[in-house]
Amino acid sequence: MRGFGVVEMGKLAWLERPDYECGDFDAILKPLAVAACSSDVHSGLEYPHLKDTILGHESLGTVIEVGKCVKDFKPGDRVIIPCTTPTWWHPEFQDTTHQDAGGMLQGINFSNYEDGTFAEQIKVRSADMNLAHLPETITLEQGVMITDMVTTGFHGPELGEIKYGDSIVVFGIGPVGLMAVAGSALRGAGKLIGVGTRPVCVELAKEYGATDIISYKEGDLGTQIMDLTHGRGVDCAIVAGGDAATLNTALAVTRPNGFLVNLNVFTGISKIEFDYLASGAGLMGHKTIRGGLCPGGRRRVERLVSIVEAGRFDPGKMVTHRFHGLEKIEDAFWLMAKKPRDLIKPVVFFE
Amino acid sequence: MRGFGVVEMGKLAWLERPDYECGDFDAILKPLAVAACSSDVHSGLEYPHLKDTILGHESLGTVIEVGKCVKDFKPGDRVIIPCTTPTWWHPEFQDTTHQDAGGMLQGINFSNYEDGTFAEQIKVRSADMNLAHLPETITLEQGVMITDMVTTGFHGPELGEIKYGDSIVVFGIGPVGLMAVAGSALRGAGKLIGVGTRPVCVELAKEYGATDIISYKEGDLGTQIMDLTHGRGVDCAIVAGGDAATLNTALAVTRPNGFLVNLNVFTGISKIEFDYLASGAGLMGHKTIRGGLCPGGRRRVERLVSIVEAGRFDPGKMVTHRFHGLEKIEDAFWLMAKKPRDLIKPVVFFE
Amino acid sequence: MRGFGVVEMGKLAWLERPDYECGDFDAILKPLAVAACSSDVHSGLEYPHLKDTILGHESLGTVIEVGKCVKDFKPGDRVIIPCTTPTWWHPEFQDTTHQDAGGMLQGINFSNYEDGTFAEQIKVRSADMNLAHLPETITLEQGVMITDMVTTGFHGPELGEIKYGDSIVVFGIGPVGLMAVAGSALRGAGKLIGVGTRPVCVELAKEYGATDIISYKEGDLGTQIMDLTHGRGVDCAIVAGGDAATLNTALAVTRPNGFLVNLNVFTGISKIEFDYLASGAGLMGHKTIRGGLCPGGRRRVERLVSIVEAGRFDPGKMVTHRFHGLEKIEDAFWLMAKKPRDLIKPVVFFE
Amino acid sequence: MRGFGVVEMGKLAWLERPDYECGDFDAILKPLAVAACSSDVHSGLEYPHLKDTILGHESLGTVIEVGKCVKDFKPGDRVIIPCTTPTWWHPEFQDTTHQDAGGMLQGINFSNYEDGTFAEQIKVRSADMNLAHLPETITLEQGVMITDMVTTGFHGPELGEIKYGDSIVVFGIGPVGLMAVAGSALRGAGKLIGVGTRPVCVELAKEYGATDIISYKEGDLGTQIMDLTHGRGVDCAIVAGGDAATLNTALAVTRPNGFLVNLNVFTGISKIEFDYLASGAGLMGHKTIRGGLCPGGRRRVERLVSIVEAGRFDPGKMVTHRFHGLEKIEDAFWLMAKKPRDLIKPVVFFE
Repeated sequence: MRGFGVVEMGKLAWLERPDYECGDFDAILKPLAVAACSSDVHSGLEYPHLKDTILGHESLGTVIEVGKCVKDFKPGDRVIIPCTTPTWWHPEFQDTTHQDAGGMLQGINFSNYEDGTFAEQIKVRSADMNLAHLPETITLEQGVMITDMVTTGFHGPELGEIKYGDSIVVFGIGPVGLMAVAGSALRGAGKLIGVGTRPVCVELAKEYGATDIISYKEGDLGTQIMDLTHGRGVDCAIVAGGDAATLNTALAVTRPNGFLVNLNVFTGISKIEFDYLASGAGLMGHKTIRGGLCPGGRRRVERLVSIVEAGRFDPGKMVTHRFHGLEKIEDAFWLMAKKPRDLIKPVVFFE
Repeated sequence: MRGFGVVEMGKLAWLERPDYECGDFDAILKPLAVAACSSDVHSGLEYPHLKDTILGHESLGTVIEVGKCVKDFKPGDRVIIPCTTPTWWHPEFQDTTHQDAGGMLQGINFSNYEDGTFAEQIKVRSADMNLAHLPETITLEQGVMITDMVTTGFHGPELGEIKYGDSIVVFGIGPVGLMAVAGSALRGAGKLIGVGTRPVCVELAKEYGATDIISYKEGDLGTQIMDLTHGRGVDCAIVAGGDAATLNTALAVTRPNGFLVNLNVFTGISKIEFDYLASGAGLMGHKTIRGGLCPGGRRRVERLVSIVEAGRFDPGKMVTHRFHGLEKIEDAFWLMAKKPRDLIKPVVFFE
Repeated sequence: MRGFGVVEMGKLAWLERPDYECGDFDAILKPLAVAACSSDVHSGLEYPHLKDTILGHESLGTVIEVGKCVKDFKPGDRVIIPCTTPTWWHPEFQDTTHQDAGGMLQGINFSNYEDGTFAEQIKVRSADMNLAHLPETITLEQGVMITDMVTTGFHGPELGEIKYGDSIVVFGIGPVGLMAVAGSALRGAGKLIGVGTRPVCVELAKEYGATDIISYKEGDLGTQIMDLTHGRGVDCAIVAGGDAATLNTALAVTRPNGFLVNLNVFTGISKIEFDYLASGAGLMGHKTIRGGLCPGGRRRVERLVSIVEAGRFDPGKMVTHRFHGLEKIEDAFWLMAKKPRDLIKPVVFFE
Repeated sequence: MRGFGVVEMGKLAWLERPDYECGDFDAILKPLAVAACSSDVHSGLEYPHLKDTILGHESLGTVIEVGKCVKDFKPGDRVIIPCTTPTWWHPEFQDTTHQDAGGMLQGINFSNYEDGTFAEQIKVRSADMNLAHLPETITLEQGVMITDMVTTGFHGPELGEIKYGDSIVVFGIGPVGLMAVAGSALRGAGKLIGVGTRPVCVELAKEYGATDIISYKEGDLGTQIMDLTHGRGVDCAIVAGGDAATLNTALAVTRPNGFLVNLNVFTGISKIEFDYLASGAGLMGHKTIRGGLCPGGRRRVERLVSIVEAGRFDPGKMVTHRFHGLEKIEDAFWLMAKKPRDLIKPVVFFE
């Protein structure tokens, strides 16, 4: 079988692979829908260490084979495949996030230390623990957004421990930031400021619950945020875009006892710096700083599906570009790499 | 000045009082809008111990005088008066809820151990800590619902520590239950079951985010809830109506590790009973049981206002009956006592 | 192989079994030390539904065989076997306690829905996830107490969310209560009241950190506790003994915003009752009620071992009676059933 | 009256002041015992902005006068004065730490924006909310250590959300670090590593519960910590000494999902830097970073007193140097500034 991936940094190609063998707890699937992600662009164009690896991690699939120990899935089932698919078989799951059990970020294997999902076949380990049934109540667009964008964006409000009426700023309103906006609204945020400029994103941010949109074009972001919060700062700043300096700006506008949450994968940086004052006089002002990869696993997906089924928000609206058929994965990837102004998410469908 | 209150259990009347004297930290207000509450009905008709007390605790007001230590309010200001107005001056605030600092339920003084707000004048202690400005961005209906119904209903999801995609049942969809529904949706609930029958409430419950409505008329509630949750039970059961037996039903349908939250003031009961099985084999199944009075205070109100301002829900829709002028408080009270099928909340306006 | 167990309620006997077959993820062990528990007495003498089942769940063992997928253990290893040994292979682990994943109390299989450890052979599923190495730094007595008594007793302060300086009462200072005392001291409790009378337990409770010991012989327990807390009540009441009425007393002395935690397995009761006042005016006073089975799993054991290694407390002191050899399991069981005044825990050693 | 303070940076002197006037909620006290703190040294020798201010903030006192609204204290009472004494009269207390209500660090007034306690008279605002009675059950040494060192050191484990069996490293075992060690042991830490070299501190760290002591003299600290934790890193790193680079080392040895807690006041730094890897690949590894000033207030003090009364640890052992009489405050200050190898805390007694 074949898949689209990286030969070495900057060199993308279709890679040939033998068909997967199905282990006792595995499922083998064919793709039903796959979305390209800026992480695929990082993996393909920016990581010197990554070689000969099929990319892709946002996918729906149809089961074609399951291992003998798999109980809840059978060939023909249509499923949602979260981008984080741990083995769930490491003792550290017992007292840490599954994303990091067995080592930091070890829960995320696709395109990382195993082949990804931009391929004719997809292999999912620990199928009963990782797959979720795709119900007829949600669309393919919605389902494929749940695999990464929703769980990643919603992780912001979780890490920020948002309470009713918290004031929030989300730096960057690409797809992760948009889901951080939607996820903040769905935790009862009050003032909810989005930072961004592209009209397609601005419009959707408002629809997802942003109360204010600001842009660097209108002046210093920190000043705008302090003005909008009457000098108080935000309860939680979520970083879903920008560069390393954005973290410092975000921390500066976070009030004492507030949270700075990072959801952005920074590439090509060697350190993170906070000004003494932004940090709260040298970490003395009860500001909490944290960040992390999105949760995966079956129950996470089922929970997010139930929110979409309830009609509380529609993540499918982020799909701006549609393709059909395996070959078009390449187009979707390069579209993501170029990021035209009207793009949020490109999806390739297989039926 | 005069106010409508209880002479002794079952005997309601207009009571004469001297004008309030304004202490250093107090504010004296005249009413702008007041709502009647089922708690007023309990206080007036069901409590043998309560005598000679003006009722009422859900109010907006206009400041007419402030004490010399009050900084943030001045005569003429239009304000929201939360129903819970502690002194904020007891050391127990430092490590307990303000509702219970200085003794259980001691944070709630109106109609309890001081006169309430169904009167020509309202006195609020610790004004800077308890009052919040009524912004022009929200309506009088919205504002008066925030004083009790919103903060009470939203306390359910708080006590139930609701997470994204939790399944919820709310027993009783009167105004507190409706706000528990809205508050659950605004914490990212998935399946959200309301229990009730009155069409006016059913319609609004759906608008506030209920995914399913069930009624005792269609069979055993426990069975219906287990069916809707595929035998798993709910993550959180919120009790906002019914009788003491409702608590047992609610606990029975709560899954292990789930929460039973009580928001209902039960009168005339002497004990609470849970079946051995409902309780999780004698409190062995990691079910959490709790309940409590609503939070008050200025920041709480400001936070809730910010959610309404953001347009995330409209509590004003619960106002089904409108009156004008002081004398009509009596009508509003008796309407609440009779609870006709089309009633959710009656409000008396003063301008 | 043979094991000591229950034929039917009240009829105990040595049961013959074929040798265990070792599944891919299993380990087969021979016992190194086993302790009898009051739960064994419940299982043997009080449960009508339990038949033909080997009892026992507190054990150390020596590995004699492991399945081909077991990585971290090999024949000859000396290990601690927690009494809760889930499969760790159910999606509900992803958002619930492992004790209840797959159904309430389903994490605890020994003597429940599988044979227990009072036997020549012990089978442990998911060995890498459940077993922990027995280090030479701790004694057999300490190790076997960790399997159940320590993890159960320490679960009380966990469920009660104890903070520095909390005042605590522990009802019952048998072995679970003693470990609740030690666990409370190790969370920084202030006043720590134990309820009990047997001198051997009283002495050890003080050594583990109790500041006061009270007894029903000296008057009403509730009155004594309120006196000791200057009328304020405790921040957390932990029930580790007594009958169902103890729960009500415990809740009555719990201050608003406090916790009632149940660790006791009640048999032969059909319901749990709380007085209206004890419950906080019908669950209105922000009291939290909860309880649950102890956590198990490898990391839990390793964490508890590290506390014993650090010398913070010595659970081995609870071992008051020692036996040697398989046949003596029967004596240990009946000793536990009779509970003489000088007994805390009886242990049978195999080397 | 007179007090010892800073005229301008580096210039210390006895300052003359009029006697305090006692406001309605205030108490005026004379000192009973005062300790010098490294923060006094910062204030006196390192802060360009601080002028004409009496230093000192760790004190016991005897009440000489109270305002008319003070209920719980009267002249002659011996009391503990926490170093953090907010007004408790700002709405932000309602949803933030009291240390930062009304602005970052605004809860700490002594030697900051009001005169401190190195004086013949001490004024405490909001006396009922801030003072605690000094019971006869604890010593003056213990009491004066509670005012700052205990509450500050114990704040580390609080901010680090320490669980049973967490592995901990404390950087710096001066008095704050020693109390972080004691406070970690009293939350049930397992391995507990102290970083320091002075014998007097090393000995006491072990007594307070440290399981291992390491020093930069024996090699790279990060390497030593990773070795002691078998490559896993610590669950919580508490910084109570060192320079800004210590924060980076501390974060590097914190495992994913762990906590870096800062308790150290850094002076003369302009930024905080974390290496990309130490930060968890750019804040992607679920490490939490936070820090903040110690909690104050009456209930905090009462809680800490109850732990000392229970005999769980003895903070009085940190007092290595004793002086008597007002004039000796100057000696205590300069001793703290010079920090001889045998010094932990110097205390001046007044009776």
